[in-house]
Amino acid sequence: MRYELYYWAGIQGLGEFVRLALEEARADYVDIAREADGERAMLRLLDSKDVEHPPFAPPYLKAEELLIGQTANILFYLGPRHDLAPPTEAGRLWAHQLQLTIADLVDEVHDTHHPIASSLYYKDQRPEAKRRTADFVNSRAPKYLGYFEKVLIRNKAGSEYLIGANLTYPDLSLFQVVAGLRYAFPRAMTRLEPKYPRVTALHERVATRPRIAAYLSSNRRIPFNEHGIFRHYPELDVDT
Amino acid sequence: MRYELYYWAGIQGLGEFVRLALEEARADYVDIAREADGERAMLRLLDSKDVEHPPFAPPYLKAEELLIGQTANILFYLGPRHDLAPPTEAGRLWAHQLQLTIADLVDEVHDTHHPIASSLYYKDQRPEAKRRTADFVNSRAPKYLGYFEKVLIRNKAGSEYLIGANLTYPDLSLFQVVAGLRYAFPRAMTRLEPKYPRVTALHERVATRPRIAAYLSSNRRIPFNEHGIFRHYPELDVDT
Repeated sequence: MRYELYYWAGIQGLGEFVRLALEEARADYVDIAREADGERAMLRLLDSKDVEHPPFAPPYLKAEELLIGQTANILFYLGPRHDLAPPTEAGRLWAHQLQLTIADLVDEVHDTHHPIASSLYYKDQRPEAKRRTADFVNSRAPKYLGYFEKVLIRNKAGSEYLIGANLTYPDLSLFQVVAGLRYAFPRAMTRLEPKYPRVTALHERVATRPRIAAYLSSNRRIPFNEHGIFRHYPELDVDT
Repeated sequence: MRYELYYWAGIQGLGEFVRLALEEARADYVDIAREADGERAMLRLLDSKDVEHPPFAPPYLKAEELLIGQTANILFYLGPRHDLAPPTEAGRLWAHQLQLTIADLVDEVHDTHHPIASSLYYKDQRPEAKRRTADFVNSRAPKYLGYFEKVLIRNKAGSEYLIGANLTYPDLSLFQVVAGLRYAFPRAMTRLEPKYPRVTALHERVATRPRIAAYLSSNRRIPFNEHGIFRHYPELDVDT
């Protein structure tokens, strides 16, 4: 079976959390929006009246007859099928709980540059973005990073992965979060990272896995840019 | 087994989505924070070094040996155990997808009154809250309500419930969203509701279910107030 991933072309965005899982699984997939006329195909599916279970927004994954929306839900589906989730129900709920917490963090990152409305340009909400970002880097980011550091410390199988002794999909997503935060807030992260050595080490551990390393150096990995979730606006990355 | 629900006393908040499922299931549960010294017990558990799978934040549910965090994850666990989820894997993924979309909506509602920082008072972000709320009621709320109306229309088993011919947990959550939006934005909702008759009818259908009706008229249902997610600030509920 060949998966079809539907997401915006040109940004990592939420789709990247799915791409990382598909790449680590070496799954057969097509990134539809990057094909010729692909983004139109994505929107056509989103607007089609024939879809019984319409997604609210990209990303969504087509897996044979299934059309699955919501990033964390897609990963919940893919995880057990590609050896990227724990084997027990309790373990899968825990993995999903971590993924949903990552989703909350990612949502807050988006709102650092769009605190008022996604429909407005960044420049039309810059003063508000400055206030929100100050709170994010001083209060929220440390809270989340500290949480994942704690999860790594508590893992009875060791601090190499979030869950047990093997990689699971939330590890891939936490890698992406660290990469994104470094891109968006390099000054703040230089200050913050030493406090979370296990999170930082996990980022490196994932980045150097053969399939992930190959993906990151391929042209399938879209560079970070100022249209995605993690954006670098120097005026927001200030010491406060 | 008696479930233990851990959430803040005094607000509906995210805990309410879990309470509604437990009430409809007539499940045996204790709302820990409302017991004597309960909120302290909740924080003790949150801070305890003995918890192998620490939650990031309330709500969390204790179910025998399991401690489950993240509202949608708790509902994913409870659903099949209490006949509040579809029987197939595809159906459960769809239910969860809808629940995660509701979670996104609820998150946006929170940010109408706290667009800058949860750690600041509302009065310290009132101008920003006015801007964000205007976008929410004019653009985001119609988009979400229109989406759920579409899901009800597309349901091949009829428009009484979101999924199939029976109530599932996302129905309970959508009821709560409509109730909350009516409380927070009565003027906007008077204008919006006629456009989404199936969503409005679903709200009534859930509200009049015997167990839900009994719950809503009991003192277990905490009234909406200005500490929760859905807050009524008249200055935000304006025609624009």
